[in-house]
Amino acid sequence: MNAVELIERKRDGGVLSDREIAWMIQAYTGGSVTDYQMSAMAMAIFLNGLNAAELNAWTDAMLHSGEVLDFADIAAPKVDKHSTGGVGDKVSIPLAPMVAACGLAIPMMSGRGLGHTGGTLDKLESIPGFRTGLDPSEFRRVLEECGLVLAGQSETLVPADRKLYALRDATGTVPSIPLIASSIMSKKLAEGLDALILDVKVGVGAFMQKIEDARTLASTMVGIGNDHGVNTVALLTAMDAPLGREVGNASEIRESIDVLTGGGPSDLVDVTYALGIEMLLSGDVASDEEDARAMLRRAVETGAAMERFAKVIAEQGGNPRVIDDPDILPMADGIHEITAERSGTVHRCDARKVGVAAMRLGAGRERKEDTIDPGVGITVFAKPGQSVAEGDLLARLRYRHPARLQEALRILAEAWYIDADPIDVPPLIEERIAAASAG
Amino acid sequence: MNAVELIERKRDGGVLSDREIAWMIQAYTGGSVTDYQMSAMAMAIFLNGLNAAELNAWTDAMLHSGEVLDFADIAAPKVDKHSTGGVGDKVSIPLAPMVAACGLAIPMMSGRGLGHTGGTLDKLESIPGFRTGLDPSEFRRVLEECGLVLAGQSETLVPADRKLYALRDATGTVPSIPLIASSIMSKKLAEGLDALILDVKVGVGAFMQKIEDARTLASTMVGIGNDHGVNTVALLTAMDAPLGREVGNASEIRESIDVLTGGGPSDLVDVTYALGIEMLLSGDVASDEEDARAMLRRAVETGAAMERFAKVIAEQGGNPRVIDDPDILPMADGIHEITAERSGTVHRCDARKVGVAAMRLGAGRERKEDTIDPGVGITVFAKPGQSVAEGDLLARLRYRHPARLQEALRILAEAWYIDADPIDVPPLIEERIAAASAG
Repeated sequence: MNAVELIERKRDGGVLSDREIAWMIQAYTGGSVTDYQMSAMAMAIFLNGLNAAELNAWTDAMLHSGEVLDFADIAAPKVDKHSTGGVGDKVSIPLAPMVAACGLAIPMMSGRGLGHTGGTLDKLESIPGFRTGLDPSEFRRVLEECGLVLAGQSETLVPADRKLYALRDATGTVPSIPLIASSIMSKKLAEGLDALILDVKVGVGAFMQKIEDARTLASTMVGIGNDHGVNTVALLTAMDAPLGREVGNASEIRESIDVLTGGGPSDLVDVTYALGIEMLLSGDVASDEEDARAMLRRAVETGAAMERFAKVIAEQGGNPRVIDDPDILPMADGIHEITAERSGTVHRCDARKVGVAAMRLGAGRERKEDTIDPGVGITVFAKPGQSVAEGDLLARLRYRHPARLQEALRILAEAWYIDADPIDVPPLIEERIAAASAG
Repeated sequence: MNAVELIERKRDGGVLSDREIAWMIQAYTGGSVTDYQMSAMAMAIFLNGLNAAELNAWTDAMLHSGEVLDFADIAAPKVDKHSTGGVGDKVSIPLAPMVAACGLAIPMMSGRGLGHTGGTLDKLESIPGFRTGLDPSEFRRVLEECGLVLAGQSETLVPADRKLYALRDATGTVPSIPLIASSIMSKKLAEGLDALILDVKVGVGAFMQKIEDARTLASTMVGIGNDHGVNTVALLTAMDAPLGREVGNASEIRESIDVLTGGGPSDLVDVTYALGIEMLLSGDVASDEEDARAMLRRAVETGAAMERFAKVIAEQGGNPRVIDDPDILPMADGIHEITAERSGTVHRCDARKVGVAAMRLGAGRERKEDTIDPGVGITVFAKPGQSVAEGDLLARLRYRHPARLQEALRILAEAWYIDADPIDVPPLIEERIAAASAG
């Protein structure tokens, strides 16, 4: 086969066969198809798309570019949850121990933060000693012992995606629905799952800002998952304001612990439960929504979920004392508060601006090679629909460098909008998508 | 500036500024923009195009990526002719000495053959000793001494194009009108010309098979040339059948010598004169078409053109005895003749099939690294519009390897079509395009 011919076909709007796609991805992984050929292909796909059959073949080829995990010997249903990324989205951290306590096995592989969105791995690594880089045998052992494991993507899984993702990042071919969907799904399908719940974020703070785009991405991924025999459901959830109060790394661990103790802000709790219910249902350990909700509540109230969390922290080298004594988490000394300049109803608390400001404080990465400061971040006190009086606290910033604080404040200048009129806050869980077909 | 941002803009159908384009090409030539970034950009340009201003800026940036020749100290008007490539198109070889004898200076840089089309350099190198790789000082010296020089592209000119062309070849981004036009024109504009005549071939044996595409390419290049202050005219000429009788390398030198002695097949002579007339007019050494035609005829009849050819051969290391004794040219021994299977009028003599068959005999290159056999080739005896009787000679093949002959014959199986009905052969010179605007 010949890479140029395949690129030309896609360039001209033609269709690639399963065999051709498998060859292209394999040759790219092996190096006989070059980066510059794959980037031309990625741009052609960006502009001309992939149909459902091509998309399944592309995902399949990526999936089989490396090791595929097999946990068939673990009796519990293997279920994972994936979020497309938002601001303050720490849901995975309380959710995984909760559903593990309900009888699921959660082989969760997460990512790092980039740009204005945070990453579960960065947050977990703010726990002293916590290691997210596990080798395959450690990964399996932790999963078997704890019913969950919270790790980074293994080097042996989906090497084609690692290579292709870096290439797309450098060639302006990231925001393509088929390329995003196949990238996410190939990694998730390599985890050896029975079911997968997708949290597709939509809004100013999300990758997808328009509901139609989020819907297309969600149904594309649901289609790929179901076509691969993995029970896949997506929720579209709002990402106009940050989720919960905390945006940072150590601070998001604190807030996750709050959720596991039965507390935490209601929006964060609602999304966590909604996703948890879907996981229990699709993993077939709950009979209906009410049953699932009750199981999750019980896991929290009995401390079973927290016990799982403590165990997974210990197994992954972290200090489980963090649960009873969150003050062992790093915390920057500098504090700056932003207050309301007028009384009224909060109409906007811009998730993207808060995310970018937190990144500038040091909580996120502008570039992959940047390092994270786990102790800085933003606590959000006023969210859309809330009433505030002039002088009320809108946010508290924890910072280390005054220059970075100034940058963050510049970005936050118009993050809140307060008006005399009341507003209707749109629902947090916007849509549920199941049983779609790929493409 | 940031390559990803520029790629994204073009991907989304936006417009790049002159400064951005200049930066991109310069950074690519220097290596800080990578091959994989440029290939994504090339695919985005392929699919979304460049407007007239972008195209001029792109060409300009390529042109200034290396040395730009300056022959201002040579009094004669500097004029070149460029063909987009065809089968049997040896026009440059008799034409350059003819117009040089009429008072123009011809700093001609030509290319090598690839695929089914031949290359002027390969043909010239079949003359024993002839060197086409001249350094800049030799190039200038030969031009000054002979009024013409017939060489390959200098390494110091338009390095961005050399890099980009190789990349496009490997990434399915060759047949893009803005990329073709800027590639050709940047190289021609770097020759320090006063005028440029383009021969845009159209037909089954040409790069452009549809007249509309050829017209678009021609007016795009004419626009770029005129916008850069070079008097540029294009002729669209037919490339459905091979031009002249000979398709090969040494054999095309023989036929070129025929033209310079006042002989040669009429189609080849017609195209040579049509382009020569445009060169003399645009170089301002002839007052009108009739005057120009008379000058060319005189240059042939007096032997002035042949004298120039002999001189340039000698100056470039070749054996000028070839002119009086073409038998010193290499010639393969094997001869195979194809004859007409029926009587009638020739409706088709497929230039592409003849070109591919000649390549298979060894006259051309399938890949850049292939070597040429100058002594093989095809002589075409029957062209569209001609009457033939059953058994008449259609073509004679000169071959070295029987296996290659068989391959060539397979390709030629349906190259000719003979029918009882007469046909109207369309005109050889289809259109003349001058004073268009780029894009």
